[in-house]
Amino acid sequence: MLKASPLAMVPFVSVDNMMRLVHHIGIETFLSDLAAEIEADFARWELFDKTPRIGSHSEVGVIELMPTSDGQHYAFKYVNGHPKNMKEGLQTVTAFGVLSDVYTGYPKLFCEMTLLTALRTGAMSAVATKHLARKDARTMAMIGNGAQSEFQCLAIKAVCGIDNIRLYDIDPAATRKCMANLQGLGFTITPCTTAQEAIEGADVITVATADKNAQTILTDNMVGAGVHINAIGGDCPGKTELHRDIVARSSVFVEYPAQTRIEGEIQQMPPDHPVTELWQVITGAAQGRSSAAEVTLFDGVGFAIEDFSALRYVQKTILQTPYYIDVDLIADPDDPRDLFGMLKRAG
Amino acid sequence: MLKASPLAMVPFVSVDNMMRLVHHIGIETFLSDLAAEIEADFARWELFDKTPRIGSHSEVGVIELMPTSDGQHYAFKYVNGHPKNMKEGLQTVTAFGVLSDVYTGYPKLFCEMTLLTALRTGAMSAVATKHLARKDARTMAMIGNGAQSEFQCLAIKAVCGIDNIRLYDIDPAATRKCMANLQGLGFTITPCTTAQEAIEGADVITVATADKNAQTILTDNMVGAGVHINAIGGDCPGKTELHRDIVARSSVFVEYPAQTRIEGEIQQMPPDHPVTELWQVITGAAQGRSSAAEVTLFDGVGFAIEDFSALRYVQKTILQTPYYIDVDLIADPDDPRDLFGMLKRAG
Repeated sequence: MLKASPLAMVPFVSVDNMMRLVHHIGIETFLSDLAAEIEADFARWELFDKTPRIGSHSEVGVIELMPTSDGQHYAFKYVNGHPKNMKEGLQTVTAFGVLSDVYTGYPKLFCEMTLLTALRTGAMSAVATKHLARKDARTMAMIGNGAQSEFQCLAIKAVCGIDNIRLYDIDPAATRKCMANLQGLGFTITPCTTAQEAIEGADVITVATADKNAQTILTDNMVGAGVHINAIGGDCPGKTELHRDIVARSSVFVEYPAQTRIEGEIQQMPPDHPVTELWQVITGAAQGRSSAAEVTLFDGVGFAIEDFSALRYVQKTILQTPYYIDVDLIADPDDPRDLFGMLKRAG
Repeated sequence: MLKASPLAMVPFVSVDNMMRLVHHIGIETFLSDLAAEIEADFARWELFDKTPRIGSHSEVGVIELMPTSDGQHYAFKYVNGHPKNMKEGLQTVTAFGVLSDVYTGYPKLFCEMTLLTALRTGAMSAVATKHLARKDARTMAMIGNGAQSEFQCLAIKAVCGIDNIRLYDIDPAATRKCMANLQGLGFTITPCTTAQEAIEGADVITVATADKNAQTILTDNMVGAGVHINAIGGDCPGKTELHRDIVARSSVFVEYPAQTRIEGEIQQMPPDHPVTELWQVITGAAQGRSSAAEVTLFDGVGFAIEDFSALRYVQKTILQTPYYIDVDLIADPDDPRDLFGMLKRAG
């Protein structure tokens, strides 16, 4: 190719390089570092430009853009959600993202985010669990053993030290897959045949199912006092996982209320249902768990700042590694006004 | 790298490959084909999901995301606008975009759009001029001879047969650059030292300046009866190019009113200032020019459907060419629920 100027080049992290980067760092280290990045960015929440994600809905799914900026860096993620994809041999969720320099508007990182979203979603639940679960929590029920489940388990272990996992999925093959993947990673794993069985004795319940319908994976009488629930599968309008009585009985913690009221479990509740913003728990401005008997619910839908944290983390960690390539993404003529001249001379 | 599945791969068109593609097709053919694509998409305007672009503004510029969908394909463009960049040796506008399959949510094309935006912006003005200028128009004044100017001139020649060009820029070096670039491409070119001089005898006036301020590049007494004006440089809040008296005297045609009222010349006017949507002129649902004496104004700010058309055009034309590479953008495990297994096995 013609010699492109260094300004034209943007580092690109492919899926293959993301996998290499994760193994280079170590999965659990990656997850706990990422959780720390998210925590640090949540602690400066007010600095960020925040907007609900911009969705384009069809009958079979949604494609969303999730932008945010802290005034120095701008990030956005493209992410789709197509529950029917799985049956067709495709990913329910695929994603990629870009990190840019606010001062110049130039993109500075182009990155796969299918894996990175799974990693950051695990890290986010772990941050919520760290701040909201009882300190003596040792056992987690993982309801829904699909593509997100292992990331949830590994992040909760890395960040909260919870290594006793009870698995349940309506499809036993998913549970077998999850169990096999977690083998040898330091967990004690109990496969269960009902959701009720899985949550027996669990201090933390993480629910990550993918159907695009109002579901009641958990009903109220199943949930005992003192548990912390991460409900992360209900992430678009019309899609919920918990019976509303559980939501009503819980103290609800959210990322960004304007988005969660549209997409989260609280879409079942009145628009003024009380919620606490998780960033305020992290800074100490709001109370988290108030008693050992309280049921806390992290109604996680995924917010742009988490992707920002993840892209910043990748941008920092790929330096001095071979885990990216430079791609010629920006037209950069010698004279910035001479875009046409650059094109003409290439002829 | 590890063998990625074909589903994981997304065609990427770099700046270098875009330049090769344009020359392979021929610049004027590319511009007139692209104008035809835009016209065809404007003719089915009502099928598209439309939303004003989502901007993230800073003191020095803006970063925008521009999504749209026709129900089969989804496209978005990332574009920045940083007028101060030019003085720092950088592009005022850089862009890239993605085209996706609505049914699966999978990205199907990743494409540089700095060049492509310049090309589609030229093609768009040419479409507007074709439908709004007097049929006997032969001379265009090109006010603002920066990065966009040559694309405007070449598109208007390719689509409308206008090859008599009068150039003006506050910086004579820009005019010299534009003139040199257009040399040998079949134009009769007159460099001018004032805007007033440039528009003498012009049937079409295209204004494309980049300062992020309310400007009055043209005042009312300069503009004679019967001209068509393309005002394309005012494309964000606070940035205008025409004196409001010109706007008041013109019949105003716009892409998408909700966006143009925020970003276009009509931001100077009351929120109910009458405008005609250009797509309705193209379908025949609304009248374009009503008399030879009327002043018509295309208040162009650039809309997502034009980028959709451009990405679709590139997607079709790169087939059977070497002008793209496949990049490993999507994580595609054999079992879609086994994202973690794919990561684990890569270790």
